Amino acid sequence: MNQDVLSKIVENNKGLISQGAVATYIPELAKVSKDYLGAVIAFPDGTMLSAGDTKVRFAIESISKTVVLALALLDNGEEEVFKHVHKEPSGDAFNSIKKLETEPDHLPRNPFINAGAIMTASLIKGKDPEDKFNRILEFMKKISEDDSLELATDIYLSEKATGDTNRGLAYYMKGQGVLSGNVEDILDVYFKQCSIYVTTESLAKIARFFANGGVLSTGERVIPKKYAQIVSGLIATCGMYDQSGEYLDNIGIPGKSGVGGGIISPVSSKKIGVAVFGPALDAEGNSVAGMGIMKDISKEMELDMF
Amino acid sequence: MNQDVLSKIVENNKGLISQGAVATYIPELAKVSKDYLGAVIAFPDGTMLSAGDTKVRFAIESISKTVVLALALLDNGEEEVFKHVHKEPSGDAFNSIKKLETEPDHLPRNPFINAGAIMTASLIKGKDPEDKFNRILEFMKKISEDDSLELATDIYLSEKATGDTNRGLAYYMKGQGVLSGNVEDILDVYFKQCSIYVTTESLAKIARFFANGGVLSTGERVIPKKYAQIVSGLIATCGMYDQSGEYLDNIGIPGKSGVGGGIISPVSSKKIGVAVFGPALDAEGNSVAGMGIMKDISKEMELDMF
Amino acid sequence: MNQDVLSKIVENNKGLISQGAVATYIPELAKVSKDYLGAVIAFPDGTMLSAGDTKVRFAIESISKTVVLALALLDNGEEEVFKHVHKEPSGDAFNSIKKLETEPDHLPRNPFINAGAIMTASLIKGKDPEDKFNRILEFMKKISEDDSLELATDIYLSEKATGDTNRGLAYYMKGQGVLSGNVEDILDVYFKQCSIYVTTESLAKIARFFANGGVLSTGERVIPKKYAQIVSGLIATCGMYDQSGEYLDNIGIPGKSGVGGGIISPVSSKKIGVAVFGPALDAEGNSVAGMGIMKDISKEMELDMF
Amino acid sequence: MNQDVLSKIVENNKGLISQGAVATYIPELAKVSKDYLGAVIAFPDGTMLSAGDTKVRFAIESISKTVVLALALLDNGEEEVFKHVHKEPSGDAFNSIKKLETEPDHLPRNPFINAGAIMTASLIKGKDPEDKFNRILEFMKKISEDDSLELATDIYLSEKATGDTNRGLAYYMKGQGVLSGNVEDILDVYFKQCSIYVTTESLAKIARFFANGGVLSTGERVIPKKYAQIVSGLIATCGMYDQSGEYLDNIGIPGKSGVGGGIISPVSSKKIGVAVFGPALDAEGNSVAGMGIMKDISKEMELDMF
Repeated sequence: MNQDVLSKIVENNKGLISQGAVATYIPELAKVSKDYLGAVIAFPDGTMLSAGDTKVRFAIESISKTVVLALALLDNGEEEVFKHVHKEPSGDAFNSIKKLETEPDHLPRNPFINAGAIMTASLIKGKDPEDKFNRILEFMKKISEDDSLELATDIYLSEKATGDTNRGLAYYMKGQGVLSGNVEDILDVYFKQCSIYVTTESLAKIARFFANGGVLSTGERVIPKKYAQIVSGLIATCGMYDQSGEYLDNIGIPGKSGVGGGIISPVSSKKIGVAVFGPALDAEGNSVAGMGIMKDISKEMELDMF
Repeated sequence: MNQDVLSKIVENNKGLISQGAVATYIPELAKVSKDYLGAVIAFPDGTMLSAGDTKVRFAIESISKTVVLALALLDNGEEEVFKHVHKEPSGDAFNSIKKLETEPDHLPRNPFINAGAIMTASLIKGKDPEDKFNRILEFMKKISEDDSLELATDIYLSEKATGDTNRGLAYYMKGQGVLSGNVEDILDVYFKQCSIYVTTESLAKIARFFANGGVLSTGERVIPKKYAQIVSGLIATCGMYDQSGEYLDNIGIPGKSGVGGGIISPVSSKKIGVAVFGPALDAEGNSVAGMGIMKDISKEMELDMF
Repeated sequence: MNQDVLSKIVENNKGLISQGAVATYIPELAKVSKDYLGAVIAFPDGTMLSAGDTKVRFAIESISKTVVLALALLDNGEEEVFKHVHKEPSGDAFNSIKKLETEPDHLPRNPFINAGAIMTASLIKGKDPEDKFNRILEFMKKISEDDSLELATDIYLSEKATGDTNRGLAYYMKGQGVLSGNVEDILDVYFKQCSIYVTTESLAKIARFFANGGVLSTGERVIPKKYAQIVSGLIATCGMYDQSGEYLDNIGIPGKSGVGGGIISPVSSKKIGVAVFGPALDAEGNSVAGMGIMKDISKEMELDMF
Repeated sequence: MNQDVLSKIVENNKGLISQGAVATYIPELAKVSKDYLGAVIAFPDGTMLSAGDTKVRFAIESISKTVVLALALLDNGEEEVFKHVHKEPSGDAFNSIKKLETEPDHLPRNPFINAGAIMTASLIKGKDPEDKFNRILEFMKKISEDDSLELATDIYLSEKATGDTNRGLAYYMKGQGVLSGNVEDILDVYFKQCSIYVTTESLAKIARFFANGGVLSTGERVIPKKYAQIVSGLIATCGMYDQSGEYLDNIGIPGKSGVGGGIISPVSSKKIGVAVFGPALDAEGNSVAGMGIMKDISKEMELDMF
């Protein structure tokens, strides 16, 4: 892979943009231009290859679930975290509630469906929601090696104003006795973590961090290797919700998407992180052109895990 | 049926009390003596037969759902109400959430499961939650022909403090786009309607009101006959949640219970209302001795509908 | 009610025929003229009022489930029968399988959904499937006071050839350890019981039998009153599957339909049986014009239970 | 890894045997000694490392699903196969039926749950069930590079005699219109494919075949690389049913188990296949000591994918 090839791959996938549409469930996401498209590959030595709109800021949305899981593991240990959330694909939609009722233990199936991500957010240490969110933000800055990350306040307020299904999930878990703490406080942390402004570059470095076993490009270890493996493994099986199997089959590497238009793929075998950004989403909420780029990068670099 | 027979029936069923336990999910209900037991039969001419603890005040809880449905019908008409909630037995528990996800229209199955009762409460007219609740209370006073009904503030506050599963149901419906209005306001009305202090006598008169086609003992018609029939019909099929079939089979008349220990049975064929009160509940949340009394009354008076 | 009124009711509802269509899942049902329409009211003294096509023979289909339940009760007693099938509305479609997996005891919810009816058929005594079916046929002849009932062999063979969903239900129950005996033998009995030729008159007499507490027009008691009440009660709550609440609300009396176009309504309060026949079905599989007639009869005779 | 280390790993895990029990749902499996334990690693050059009971013959059971999927892909192409079965984790048990009802397209979620495996078996070409099974057996011999594979007739007959839940799945799919062909014929092929006698060595070679992209140790390509990748990818996400996430997290490589006591793990990154055999199963039906060995091998050889 080199700069020219990557630029060409991005260029070649621009045609797919017309097949998607930007998320509209909050006005702030609907304002984003659907024409953005970018890709970054972050290598373990700290170098990166970038092409397209890789400096544009957008909301991390569900990709934050991977980062918060890592911090929850660091805060609580593996055993404690997985007393509150399982590691299995749910077989249902990202915002599904039914298994919270039908599973005998009422726990969310994994940390990447909304119910599980809310549970994970509830495990973050801190003296209040503000403190908890700040710890998440600082941790995200650290592992993305990007100090410019910040809360997108308007997106956060919109998420908070419209997050009734998530409220339903959280209160239902509270009612089942499996979620502890003040629900609105927990949701506040959750809505904020989803509303952090990132760039494709920062996402690529987050992906690299997980691919590299929890080590920064500086060589600094931030989390135990096992925690990075847990996150990458869960991205492989649960990262694209009930489309995870399709993604793994088509692209051959784990992927975690967000409705902001980002996708990250940590590639453990080569310790590299790949990220794309394209806010035109398909019906499942995944970046159409972004997936096209991921597929081409995977093919070009022979990243397929199988 | 006469006074002696009814007194004997109540006496005979006292032995069942030991098989039950008072509800404990809120402290206020747990404080009630489990030994209370009473029964009232209200006749269309305004007379009543009473035996046992029929003047003790207790929380109406889920029995309020029948009254609020009647008022919602009066406020909105049949067609409008049943655009928001179905009339079918759900086949699931009273606080089940899964069909809100799996049914294509995401509407509650009937007005007596919690989701459906919250929906019904949202349909009550009024300028604010206070006004809406007052309209419910006034309506309940009217049809129970009992001016002493009032809000049990401590029970309401407890219900509000612990009602997270109901909050989950309401926010989830809001998120699905089927519940309109401010969720906390709607729940406020709902928690209050469940926390009205009634006596076995007031309940028996409510039951008579429905059995008598919406007409008071004074002859005054309060709601169209059709609305009373709808309420009674739904009590028959959905009144005891996923135990409705068992109740109808064992007792032979429709029944609607509340965790406060009350049960009402409107008997349309004779225009009489029967109510019992016994806070010792079985595992399903129904008054053990109360059901015993209902069975004996039904047999003695040959009330079986079939 | 008199002959003229009934004839007029049938006439008035002919316009509804065009809103329905005959069942087509087997060729034999598809051959029936959709224009047939008839109604019979059977009174406890043995008299009947008939109007329209009341001598036409058609397949009893699901209405047989009521008769077979009565015989199963007679063969095994109430306690034994309800060890194998519940009495609750399922909240799901007539041929639903999911609750057989999700309910902890894996038993069918009631005897009128297909899974429950297959279970009930398995409880009929007899030395072989032939004998079991003959006992059902003889019992049906007896309670319909109609010796002309017979197996419609071509319908039976068609049902058997195409009954794969029912086979799925039966084998799944067998696999769960809740259905005993040879599955194909049980299904043979079940497919045959659905394929008995009846007339509207024979159905009306079956409905009367249940309404009359298990007593023939001759005064002969065939089953204990309790068994007739169980059947009628279950017709009220589960007779129209997930439309039972709507039917009870609209018509005001219990109803059990069959895809052959028949509906029976036992009216216990007056000990009369009503049956209609109209093979043009609505989307839910119920006779469109038949329900119109039922509604008019119920209104005219003031049969509403509530 | 060398012979001594592998032998020691097997030895070290013998203690886990006491925590499991042999499958007993058919007598033939119950007869197997629970003390067997063996492990084989097959390398791309054709060499193998073996330790323990690696020549003992046992039933392949669910591991056959991987082989039959590969043949179905070869027979029909990728596009056609995945018109009939999805590639997503189901989130439910291996023999679950409910999603066949609730998913709008009624298709099985993936080829490794029983419903999906029956569907896959139905796609195998051949003039009759005998021929289809023989094609499966010949294909399995080829990719396992083991001509001694054969049908275990007694196991097959037992599977056939007791396979009612599978019959339920198949007939239900037939009833939904998604499974074509004669159900008993399809099940005959399915029961036979599960009843093939293999050894740990033959399984290791099958695993290597998939890890090696569909190429034998001789260098002969049998299936396109893409098909091998599909099988390996599905093993990663769906191989251990609703324990797939746990397995991937604990062991770090894809795994597919069978109730005969075998587990295979294709390791694509090194083109090696690992297989273990230990008939003492845990509550989920997976070899207890076998998983212990897999974990130790994965750690020793640094096979973790993440």
